[in-house]
Amino acid sequence: MEFRIARESPVPAYVQIRNHLRAQILRGDLAPGTRLPPEREMARLLGVSRTTVVSAYDELAAEGLVEARVGRGTVVVGPPSPPGSEGVQPIAWPAHLSSLAQRLQGPTDAELLTLLELSARPGVISFAGGLPDPDLIPSHRYAEAWEAVLKEVGTAAAASSPVQGIAPLRDLIAERLAQRGIAATPEHITVISGSQQGLDLLTRLLTEPGDTVLCEAPTYFGALQAFRVQGLRAIGVPMDRDGMDVGRVEALVARYRPRFIYTIPTYQNPTGATLSLERRERLLAIAQKYQVPIVEDDPLGDLWFQEPPPPPIKALDERGHVIYLGTFSKSLAPGLRVGWLAAPRPVVDMVLLLRRVADLQSNTAGQYLVVEFARRGWLDEGIALARATYGARCRAMDEALRQHMPRGAEWLLPGGGLYLWLRLPEGVDAHRLLQEAGREGVVFLPGRVLYPDMGPRNVCRLSYTALREEDIARGVAILARGVRRFLQGKALAPQPGIPRDAVV
Amino acid sequence: MEFRIARESPVPAYVQIRNHLRAQILRGDLAPGTRLPPEREMARLLGVSRTTVVSAYDELAAEGLVEARVGRGTVVVGPPSPPGSEGVQPIAWPAHLSSLAQRLQGPTDAELLTLLELSARPGVISFAGGLPDPDLIPSHRYAEAWEAVLKEVGTAAAASSPVQGIAPLRDLIAERLAQRGIAATPEHITVISGSQQGLDLLTRLLTEPGDTVLCEAPTYFGALQAFRVQGLRAIGVPMDRDGMDVGRVEALVARYRPRFIYTIPTYQNPTGATLSLERRERLLAIAQKYQVPIVEDDPLGDLWFQEPPPPPIKALDERGHVIYLGTFSKSLAPGLRVGWLAAPRPVVDMVLLLRRVADLQSNTAGQYLVVEFARRGWLDEGIALARATYGARCRAMDEALRQHMPRGAEWLLPGGGLYLWLRLPEGVDAHRLLQEAGREGVVFLPGRVLYPDMGPRNVCRLSYTALREEDIARGVAILARGVRRFLQGKALAPQPGIPRDAVV
Repeated sequence: MEFRIARESPVPAYVQIRNHLRAQILRGDLAPGTRLPPEREMARLLGVSRTTVVSAYDELAAEGLVEARVGRGTVVVGPPSPPGSEGVQPIAWPAHLSSLAQRLQGPTDAELLTLLELSARPGVISFAGGLPDPDLIPSHRYAEAWEAVLKEVGTAAAASSPVQGIAPLRDLIAERLAQRGIAATPEHITVISGSQQGLDLLTRLLTEPGDTVLCEAPTYFGALQAFRVQGLRAIGVPMDRDGMDVGRVEALVARYRPRFIYTIPTYQNPTGATLSLERRERLLAIAQKYQVPIVEDDPLGDLWFQEPPPPPIKALDERGHVIYLGTFSKSLAPGLRVGWLAAPRPVVDMVLLLRRVADLQSNTAGQYLVVEFARRGWLDEGIALARATYGARCRAMDEALRQHMPRGAEWLLPGGGLYLWLRLPEGVDAHRLLQEAGREGVVFLPGRVLYPDMGPRNVCRLSYTALREEDIARGVAILARGVRRFLQGKALAPQPGIPRDAVV
Repeated sequence: MEFRIARESPVPAYVQIRNHLRAQILRGDLAPGTRLPPEREMARLLGVSRTTVVSAYDELAAEGLVEARVGRGTVVVGPPSPPGSEGVQPIAWPAHLSSLAQRLQGPTDAELLTLLELSARPGVISFAGGLPDPDLIPSHRYAEAWEAVLKEVGTAAAASSPVQGIAPLRDLIAERLAQRGIAATPEHITVISGSQQGLDLLTRLLTEPGDTVLCEAPTYFGALQAFRVQGLRAIGVPMDRDGMDVGRVEALVARYRPRFIYTIPTYQNPTGATLSLERRERLLAIAQKYQVPIVEDDPLGDLWFQEPPPPPIKALDERGHVIYLGTFSKSLAPGLRVGWLAAPRPVVDMVLLLRRVADLQSNTAGQYLVVEFARRGWLDEGIALARATYGARCRAMDEALRQHMPRGAEWLLPGGGLYLWLRLPEGVDAHRLLQEAGREGVVFLPGRVLYPDMGPRNVCRLSYTALREEDIARGVAILARGVRRFLQGKALAPQPGIPRDAVV
């Protein structure tokens, strides 16, 4: 149940519950015969008193929508048939879902979604996010940039625009890629609505259900989801401090013949590791030898702290084996939904054809806004500020970990990006630690679900980007206390999943 | 080849051609052994002199990238191997494409895309478009609305936002749907990036390759594409003045057991026909009897001329059989990429899960902008203006058709929307008429490709929305002259496809 009580609302909680259930029953989402959760259970789920739930159920019973039945609890009996629809059965949607839809549903998602909801609550120190700090760009800059765009192009800023993206944006991207050593002309670039869309389009264009792909283990959750939805088998390559263990790749490629190799070589999500130049060259050589495409996802390459990362694999690509994904979501703003894909023309052509079917084009105004920010120097200025800010926050996290974490905890200090990967002392379960720390208002992402086949229980991803340094220190101290309690056997008993009331 | 000479460019045409081909060869898009088009053919394709092409080919030969071979024409021999990549084969992308990608490629697309490009040229009277008139909303309104949004929400306008859409927008949509008789609460609504995205998501969620769907014949090209890409068999139901011939639907449903029925009941694309209330009720009854979902696509319901259309089928839906798609692309602006889907909660849940994989969310700023336009009354004002403007233009087209078209031409006068469907006199081929009229600067959409299994040759779709009334009159007169020439046997010989130089 996604429903939650709006505590700030003037509407009494029992009325909110009644209205929600009534709507569900009237729309047929709760079919006749469905048993409502017992009052006590419902009260716990929603964080209200049992009396509140009893009042709500009573009102529904008075309306003839539910009935209290001995031994069976409260059961849906309505809705009363509307005139003329007597005998019409509500449609049973689960019977109408495709195999793709069935692959979409998994307990993992529900847990993660709950976690993300929780981390958005005020007062919570969330290391679980994966987004840049929205405060790095002041809103008057957006206002000025919008004004300039509208002055220049007028209503064209809201009109339809080419599926491949507006020309000035593709020029800009080509120029920025050239600075990183990638020789893509604007015709080899297509704008997409973020790299997640690139992953979805590419899996649809390059794979069939049942195919295999290679990726890092752990890797980006959204990529694993794209693979799962497409019905792919994802084979994970272990990571170390220099990124994907490329020494293992050739044997895996020879054995599994993957449709492509997916990699985030720079400030990898979630480990923060960066693939060394030598490994980049070896990985590309394997791709060339076996004629396997590489999908290089590089959302974070701009966000280095002390020194720039090695060149993208795409910069080494002489024969068109690499498809390169980038985005302005991390360097500028995620709500713009503007990213890009750079690839040989046959790939771009197919992406454009599928885009026409998928959603026609990326929003026009966001594209102009990116161009305007770049033109005014604000894009690079914002990136410079992000480098300094995230670098300082990352160091603050490193210091706090050194200060507070008990022996046995290990982490990799990233050279850039948004994430730090923490390996807890052997035997500490990150999900249970999340329950502990959640009670004290600190959340993070347990790392187990980020592996293609479920990873170890003692890893987690901590993001430092959107928190003040003192909150980072405080949050890490709370985490460390939880780890100690765990090690001392004073932790809570294990509970299934992440309870909805973990953080209130 | 998508390349075109930039005529306003200071770079000589032969240099542009050389640069384009060189880039393609160096990137491996033109593999060694590929034969370049003969000089004369290339000159025709690009609209340049043969000498220009000869100069370009000569320079490429001098660089060792191509060779003139006797009897084989000009053949790609390069690129020279870069240092260290000797012996590395360029990747052969076609071998890496999925079955979905293969379904994407079709001659129809290429023709339509060419047509759409042509219609964008200055001076052309294009009846081929399908978009609202961008001039109906002055740009100062956008500027004001943006300013208000940024004042209210600041950088949140560019930050990430819920996959389901921002709450005020879902409230707004629920309210507007209520005015049309649809009882959807905000939790039954999800924002999507236009109805095309809705179609793509729904085909993925509700069908497997090989399944059957029912739709109108003719219907929206983007829907046929979505069906084709998913590997579906689309069965077309014939149309008349009252929309889909619902009398035939039950037998088709019983026979083919479609996964869903796709319909545009109001001001249908492309016929402009509107399904009568009685037929809406019958169609829904069939859906209920056979438990088949209806996907109701309603991008144009707001744009009526004299009187509102019958209620959406969704308004009659008591048991959750109807998934309703709407968009602000036609009533406000297509570049915003903001539409919606209203459906029973199980469908919304699945759409949300797939959206997270597909592209995470719709752009945030566009959502706030729609809310701001509505709040200021500008959305309804714009719709009222569009009704009056398009109504007048539609009447102008009707008058011009009456005045100029020879006997045997028939058309349906739509009650709203963007399109008029013209049946040319028997024996007139719309593709060949397009070539005739194209030479005189008038283009339109031949209707044949809008049928699931190719329709008659003598139908076409004319859009009147973005043209002044005098241009409509002039364009129709030119069209009619072409039809007369055709009937008099003076038309051009048939040519394959739509030639690139049809309109210059």
